Amino acid sequence: MTIVAVEVLDVRFPTSRFRDGSDAMNPDPDYSAAYVILRTDAGDGLEGHGHTFTIGRGTEVVVAAIEALQGIVLGRDEDDLFADPGGFWRELVGDSQLRWIGPEKGVIHLATAALVNAVWDLRAKRAGKPLWKLLVDLSPEDVVRSIDFRYIDDVLTPTQALDLLTERAATKPERETSIRQDGYPAYTTSVGWLGYPDDKIRRLTAAAMDDGWSAFKMKVGADQGDDVRRAALIRSVIGPERLLLMDANQRWGVDEAIAWMTPLARFEPYWIEEPTSPDDILGHARIARAVQPIRVATGEHVHNRVMFKQYLQAEALSVCQVDACRLGGVNEVLAVLLLAARSGVPVCPHAGGVGLCELVQHLSIFDYVAVSGSTAGRMIEYVGHLHEHFVDPVEVRGGRYRVPTRPGSSVEMRPESLGRYRYPRGEAWRR
Amino acid sequence: MTIVAVEVLDVRFPTSRFRDGSDAMNPDPDYSAAYVILRTDAGDGLEGHGHTFTIGRGTEVVVAAIEALQGIVLGRDEDDLFADPGGFWRELVGDSQLRWIGPEKGVIHLATAALVNAVWDLRAKRAGKPLWKLLVDLSPEDVVRSIDFRYIDDVLTPTQALDLLTERAATKPERETSIRQDGYPAYTTSVGWLGYPDDKIRRLTAAAMDDGWSAFKMKVGADQGDDVRRAALIRSVIGPERLLLMDANQRWGVDEAIAWMTPLARFEPYWIEEPTSPDDILGHARIARAVQPIRVATGEHVHNRVMFKQYLQAEALSVCQVDACRLGGVNEVLAVLLLAARSGVPVCPHAGGVGLCELVQHLSIFDYVAVSGSTAGRMIEYVGHLHEHFVDPVEVRGGRYRVPTRPGSSVEMRPESLGRYRYPRGEAWRR
Repeated sequence: MTIVAVEVLDVRFPTSRFRDGSDAMNPDPDYSAAYVILRTDAGDGLEGHGHTFTIGRGTEVVVAAIEALQGIVLGRDEDDLFADPGGFWRELVGDSQLRWIGPEKGVIHLATAALVNAVWDLRAKRAGKPLWKLLVDLSPEDVVRSIDFRYIDDVLTPTQALDLLTERAATKPERETSIRQDGYPAYTTSVGWLGYPDDKIRRLTAAAMDDGWSAFKMKVGADQGDDVRRAALIRSVIGPERLLLMDANQRWGVDEAIAWMTPLARFEPYWIEEPTSPDDILGHARIARAVQPIRVATGEHVHNRVMFKQYLQAEALSVCQVDACRLGGVNEVLAVLLLAARSGVPVCPHAGGVGLCELVQHLSIFDYVAVSGSTAGRMIEYVGHLHEHFVDPVEVRGGRYRVPTRPGSSVEMRPESLGRYRYPRGEAWRR
Repeated sequence: MTIVAVEVLDVRFPTSRFRDGSDAMNPDPDYSAAYVILRTDAGDGLEGHGHTFTIGRGTEVVVAAIEALQGIVLGRDEDDLFADPGGFWRELVGDSQLRWIGPEKGVIHLATAALVNAVWDLRAKRAGKPLWKLLVDLSPEDVVRSIDFRYIDDVLTPTQALDLLTERAATKPERETSIRQDGYPAYTTSVGWLGYPDDKIRRLTAAAMDDGWSAFKMKVGADQGDDVRRAALIRSVIGPERLLLMDANQRWGVDEAIAWMTPLARFEPYWIEEPTSPDDILGHARIARAVQPIRVATGEHVHNRVMFKQYLQAEALSVCQVDACRLGGVNEVLAVLLLAARSGVPVCPHAGGVGLCELVQHLSIFDYVAVSGSTAGRMIEYVGHLHEHFVDPVEVRGGRYRVPTRPGSSVEMRPESLGRYRYPRGEAWRR
């Protein structure tokens, strides 16, 4: 079976009209995707779907980058790609000319993720399994072969990774059973967007508690007085036991972060997320020391395994928020799951956006069953937007993700949504 | 005067046909540029030219990113841009939607550099000064106002920057006089490309010595035996006093870098450049401790001031190879010059490519006259390719850059070159 077509779409949802997703750095996002469809000559209608999440302008730049990379996928035998996912990944990130405009970061890495994830989606559909189950059923050797250890083998060698996975392998079946039954813990970001007025926050928080949520994220960083008022409000609604999470979206400098958190500490936030630049590993380390026992969480803008390696080395984060599209797709997420497990740091993936909840649930379930072996301190982000556009949307009940059962990675969008929100000519954008 | 047009060109030179520029990670680069021309309604024919260096495929992605940003420049009053270069820079890197596909890294930051540098080129031409002289004549306050201190003010505050510049200001005239007379020290990379056979390396090295060069760079990292043989060859030609520089272009992991350098140490390299991933600050720090007294140099792929801040904090580099297009243009280079000066680390800019020699000479001369106050341990890279395409090419004599005198930043390409090498429709690519 050969990959005979790579279709690349620019899909945008006009979310800025309702301030959904607003935070201190992103006041008016239009949640978007650079979206890939791989078609084959198999004749069975199965397609590989992959995407990278963007927030409006610039999606066309990621589309251009996917088009620059698509020659590496087009015309390839799919079994060859499935048999050597590590080699395929290295081809994508190692193109000797395209590498210059990264390497392994920014636009070209976002584009890599979309293509890599589309191949994994196709592979899972061919296997008739949800992606998490495909991954769980891989041998430890096959997982290791999917990972590029270049630049991380000073901290994690292939042998060490194999040992870790092999140690967990015997007990995979019991964890698979328990996660199918209980689902994976989650937290909600849908109550505390910066653009929401107080009464909406109060109403949404109370409603989320009724739905069984026990961890709630609020956006901070634009105005300290507002943050104190809103933190008091949410804490008063959720009581002392439930978790209050705070997210500054990179708004602060290092000293500013430490100072800003001082009056917020009395609301006992569980973590402060993205207090400063995602590139500032040493800055995060200093903030982490200063604000403890509040944990420092980051990762949605951390661009590759080399950066995560150092975040862990420097003890600069206590919560690893891997992003399955910011990193170069499934392969690189596997590397970071193993790095984090080796350091004993819980992975709580970045989600929300468009299709991130759908995708990362597979990776967290795999993490639990095959890598970390625990859900303690682990939660997947949940945002209640835009799921209606997906063929197999996430199902969250009682504050937990239900385990997906349909084949694939769950990122396939409905054809009518792809048509309606295609930018700039879809119906949603033509008015 | 208003900026009435932003033209963006994809210009590529087929350098891969001759293996010029070949190294361990870049075997076949086609040196290229995403090139910007700003036109105004002044009626005097002056244009702002700026570019970012690329190596072939992917230039079209950077072009798409410049087009995504150009609305921030188009229609603007040029005096407003000149009066508040810091504010203009923050507008470019702070676009609330485009920021997502960086932030401040990769394609979108390369695009930022081209636009920022084009505005500085225009400003210098309007002032009738070469860029270095425009910068030297700025007051310390104006330099500080050009810099974005966000995410670096834990190490360098605006006040500290002002103090440093003010301390140097009184003696600027004498250094300006001396640099005009003596030129700026340089080293050559033109002798040791990986794709060159031994006899060509021997011939080029000897010829370069005759031309007065005293520092020579060779590429390493593909085959250790070849590296030893070629290092012995060059050292035998240049003798014990002249400097031998080695460049691995990110080929190694951390442990591999340390091991690979062991048998090369006896040739007494002055520095090892890019031993591993440009993102691996802590890895560079470990390599630096292990290979001393060999210096660790890096920077051509270090993507912003936040990364350089940490490289300096971690003592992970001894030579700071700032890239004037990888960073977001002149403004961010100014930030790094100040960070480096504060740490006492010499800046030796990355050059070569297309137009980088032309551009960085201005920044190094400014560094000497207004910031570092010294040329000790400082050299600008020189590669003897493609200068014929520039209106005001660099002039290097006796291993030193002569100070440019024509107004602007020297990156303006000849119109006939822009036409002939335009990709894909220029004459050079049509055959």
